[in-house]
Amino acid sequence: MKVDGVSFRTIRPDEAGRGVRVIDQTLLPHVFGTVRLETAAEAARAIETMQVRGAPLIGATAAYGMAFAMRADPSDANLDAARAALLATRPTAVNLRWALDAMAALLRPLPASAREDAAYAKAAAICDEDATICEAIGENGLPLILGLHETSGGAVNVLTHCNAGWLATVDWGTALAPVYKAHDAGVPVHVWVDETRPRNQGAALTAWELNRHGVPHTVIADNAGGHLMRRGMVDMAIVGSDRTAANGDVCNKIGTYLKALAAGDNGVPFYVALPSPTIDWTLVSGADAPIEERDGEEVSTIAGRDENGAVRRVRITPDGSPVGNPAFDVTPARLVTGLVTERGVCDASAEGLAGLFPDHARAA
Amino acid sequence: MKVDGVSFRTIRPDEAGRGVRVIDQTLLPHVFGTVRLETAAEAARAIETMQVRGAPLIGATAAYGMAFAMRADPSDANLDAARAALLATRPTAVNLRWALDAMAALLRPLPASAREDAAYAKAAAICDEDATICEAIGENGLPLILGLHETSGGAVNVLTHCNAGWLATVDWGTALAPVYKAHDAGVPVHVWVDETRPRNQGAALTAWELNRHGVPHTVIADNAGGHLMRRGMVDMAIVGSDRTAANGDVCNKIGTYLKALAAGDNGVPFYVALPSPTIDWTLVSGADAPIEERDGEEVSTIAGRDENGAVRRVRITPDGSPVGNPAFDVTPARLVTGLVTERGVCDASAEGLAGLFPDHARAA
Repeated sequence: MKVDGVSFRTIRPDEAGRGVRVIDQTLLPHVFGTVRLETAAEAARAIETMQVRGAPLIGATAAYGMAFAMRADPSDANLDAARAALLATRPTAVNLRWALDAMAALLRPLPASAREDAAYAKAAAICDEDATICEAIGENGLPLILGLHETSGGAVNVLTHCNAGWLATVDWGTALAPVYKAHDAGVPVHVWVDETRPRNQGAALTAWELNRHGVPHTVIADNAGGHLMRRGMVDMAIVGSDRTAANGDVCNKIGTYLKALAAGDNGVPFYVALPSPTIDWTLVSGADAPIEERDGEEVSTIAGRDENGAVRRVRITPDGSPVGNPAFDVTPARLVTGLVTERGVCDASAEGLAGLFPDHARAA
Repeated sequence: MKVDGVSFRTIRPDEAGRGVRVIDQTLLPHVFGTVRLETAAEAARAIETMQVRGAPLIGATAAYGMAFAMRADPSDANLDAARAALLATRPTAVNLRWALDAMAALLRPLPASAREDAAYAKAAAICDEDATICEAIGENGLPLILGLHETSGGAVNVLTHCNAGWLATVDWGTALAPVYKAHDAGVPVHVWVDETRPRNQGAALTAWELNRHGVPHTVIADNAGGHLMRRGMVDMAIVGSDRTAANGDVCNKIGTYLKALAAGDNGVPFYVALPSPTIDWTLVSGADAPIEERDGEEVSTIAGRDENGAVRRVRITPDGSPVGNPAFDVTPARLVTGLVTERGVCDASAEGLAGLFPDHARAA
């Protein structure tokens, strides 16, 4: 998508073709900079520290991590070691496992000498495929926004949680792809951006990318969405997914469940946009999803820009108060109006998913 | 309640008996300090800037503001001017109007020469009455916690939102009064403290006062409560109220509604603790409650303690992104398990309230 008129992707091969440059998302919204990754350890660290985040982008970065590993040492042992190290970085995002499985399935049968080139080509293909999938999600979600606009005749107010925009993917985004498609097509749209504590991906990333692309939006505290829905100020909600169970339960950023409850209580349609690699066909229901517990410092401290423009971290809790930090929650399928995928929109149910993805549903 | 073993109130007459000292809540949890108020304008400013906050404490401070005004100029004109200035500070908290009405009803019939002494005495009585009311709320809420402990045999996990502890009142608190009563009686209790964006009253104030009194607690992002309820980690929720409608609808800190939805979805009892001055008998339902929209800077910037111990404010949103900041939401009575008042616990309904307060219900 565009940053002040210039097209960008979140991850792209560097000048020498050996490494990649990724946008360092820990610096946003205050600094727009990139970092270079060229070893598997660097790729793992970038995922772990959330310089790159968002289920699809994690998968793409991990794929390049495998390519870097094959360049350094294309042995079976290193293939296994790199795969294990990358897999351990984030327990919830299922695209990570999907991308690593795809890389391993391709590379393991190849002679060691052929692995490096094949790995780089596959990583690039995974990136291109993600962009294609996300654009298709945008096309499939566009009619939902257009329909609301045609009904009301006014701007469509869309609420979103966390960042499921192009920064969470290679390009386009998942939840925001339909918003970008609508905006670019001239459909008036306004986005309520949940701040998304504790890491503020909404206030920091969603606001930044909407702002840079020129989409009208308003940042709100995570607490505000229910009130806005009660007052009729939200026409639809749309979020991404870190892992979707085969029954349509959605594991996503902590707090998603609360917004789905409010949407249900107020008759606001609640959509989840997801690329199919985010579906865990082996996960029967969301109740079994692993939930990452992250460092409490993410809650007790917060980074921002001080009056001199320097980014610094300040403590907001008293010394001696313990902190809990579950990173995801599970929204039961009954609260989801529809799943927006690259193949179309379906019910959040085993039947709905099986209708769009009969091949996967059968194999699971 | 106690700070490191020493008993405190949030507001008390100063050494000379002319002004009051209040705990400056904008400095907590990093600095525990007081400020002296001795004019009506200072009292109004302290309410507006939230040096004092919490519906009961706002009422108590406004009462002293009227006393300061009568000391400066006990004329009818100044009585009206002070009342108007104090009333304009916060539109949602109904105790403010209640306290000002009580002061005006007492003072207006008196000769000007008698107003100063009567006003100081009445303000002191309002403070004492608030402490008595809140302690009774604690006594009435204690059996709810004790019952859960006797059922499970273990610690009772209580979730609360915002600060409805002793810092929000003169002493004891509303939602936290039963928690203090339980803790002091040796009932094991643990509090999940919602951070409460945008002003972080949970992370800053509730965590601080629980910590200082020695009550086990854990600070969580506002987004986490629904997940904890789904996992069975919350036994009850209890919050305060800024204004309660005659039908039991509860206007409280933004985000309360979302927690009430989650409690309802998971069979977790959801209580609201409130002193009767918080009931607006003229408000038929919460749908008509005025909702204060506060400055967007409360969302876009945040104050915390830097690595050198200095409290500073940092910006967390990108330049150019608009911000919305509704300060309260309305939780419909259907989501409230019970109202805990100084006269007992009742259903959140017109009938429930009328049963405990037949005098008020009839007069309205």
